[in-house]
Amino acid sequence: MDLKSLIRDIPDFPKSGILFRDITTLLQNPEGLRYVIDRFTEIFAEQSIDYVLGIESRGFLFGTPLAYNLGAGFVPVRKPGKLPGAVHGQDYELEYGTDRLEIHQDACPQGSRLLIVDDLLATGGTAAATAKLIEPLACTLVGFGFLVELSGLAGRQKLPECDINVLVEY
Amino acid sequence: MDLKSLIRDIPDFPKSGILFRDITTLLQNPEGLRYVIDRFTEIFAEQSIDYVLGIESRGFLFGTPLAYNLGAGFVPVRKPGKLPGAVHGQDYELEYGTDRLEIHQDACPQGSRLLIVDDLLATGGTAAATAKLIEPLACTLVGFGFLVELSGLAGRQKLPECDINVLVEY
Repeated sequence: MDLKSLIRDIPDFPKSGILFRDITTLLQNPEGLRYVIDRFTEIFAEQSIDYVLGIESRGFLFGTPLAYNLGAGFVPVRKPGKLPGAVHGQDYELEYGTDRLEIHQDACPQGSRLLIVDDLLATGGTAAATAKLIEPLACTLVGFGFLVELSGLAGRQKLPECDINVLVEY
Repeated sequence: MDLKSLIRDIPDFPKSGILFRDITTLLQNPEGLRYVIDRFTEIFAEQSIDYVLGIESRGFLFGTPLAYNLGAGFVPVRKPGKLPGAVHGQDYELEYGTDRLEIHQDACPQGSRLLIVDDLLATGGTAAATAKLIEPLACTLVGFGFLVELSGLAGRQKLPECDINVLVEY
């Protein structure tokens, strides 16, 4: 399936000079949505994934259907102050300023096999912070799944050694 | 399945006096996640749903797997400034101040059959605002699906006449 034909390009969003890859047009297409979930499922089906981690908020869109198909649990990685239990936190740098991600300390038992999903791999800051965030959990990071990679930004180089899968590359 | 046994109660979150119903413990349980998605699927399977609308951000968790199972498209209802295309917007009142939801104007063709999902029906402000938000789309609102209802808050009374389904009631 030609996924790029279902992704809409919107110039100058969220600010001038940025070409935004809008995946909402893909999500609203039943065949496109089905194809994306089925492809991710095929890719990770033999990897004995225990938990799929979705990064707030567009990572949630792919995380739960993938966990459902893989027979895994789903764990949200959230912005500060959203998770009610005891959390691990990880700060990371943005173009201007810093941001922070959190995960529940009891999200996954030690030794679990984890998969991290998000819609977009751009500069890699968020994904790399998530990989650092889970270090105290003493689990195995099997891989990442991204719908879209902006390969010119070289975000992949920030990620730890693991299985990085992308369905659409620009 | 006893879903309440998978939902964790956290007192005084996000502020003193609130008993927070934490669904992350349900999501991380593979059988619990599967049961919830399968139940929603059964409930709406015969309703010819064209689009499932998920309200940011916990509504995303149930919206995409349900759309996938129903063979429908998924449409995000988001906070202001997140959707890159032309939007309809709807303001609504919070306890202190106001908030706003947006949907893409071209999210669903006129006459589509829509289902709105979210994790929680509390005072009903967000869900009622979503029902108003979609009025300009000239679609049919078939119903709502909520994982949890706090029935003492009577949010249901704010919603339009349609099929309201809840899996766990407190």
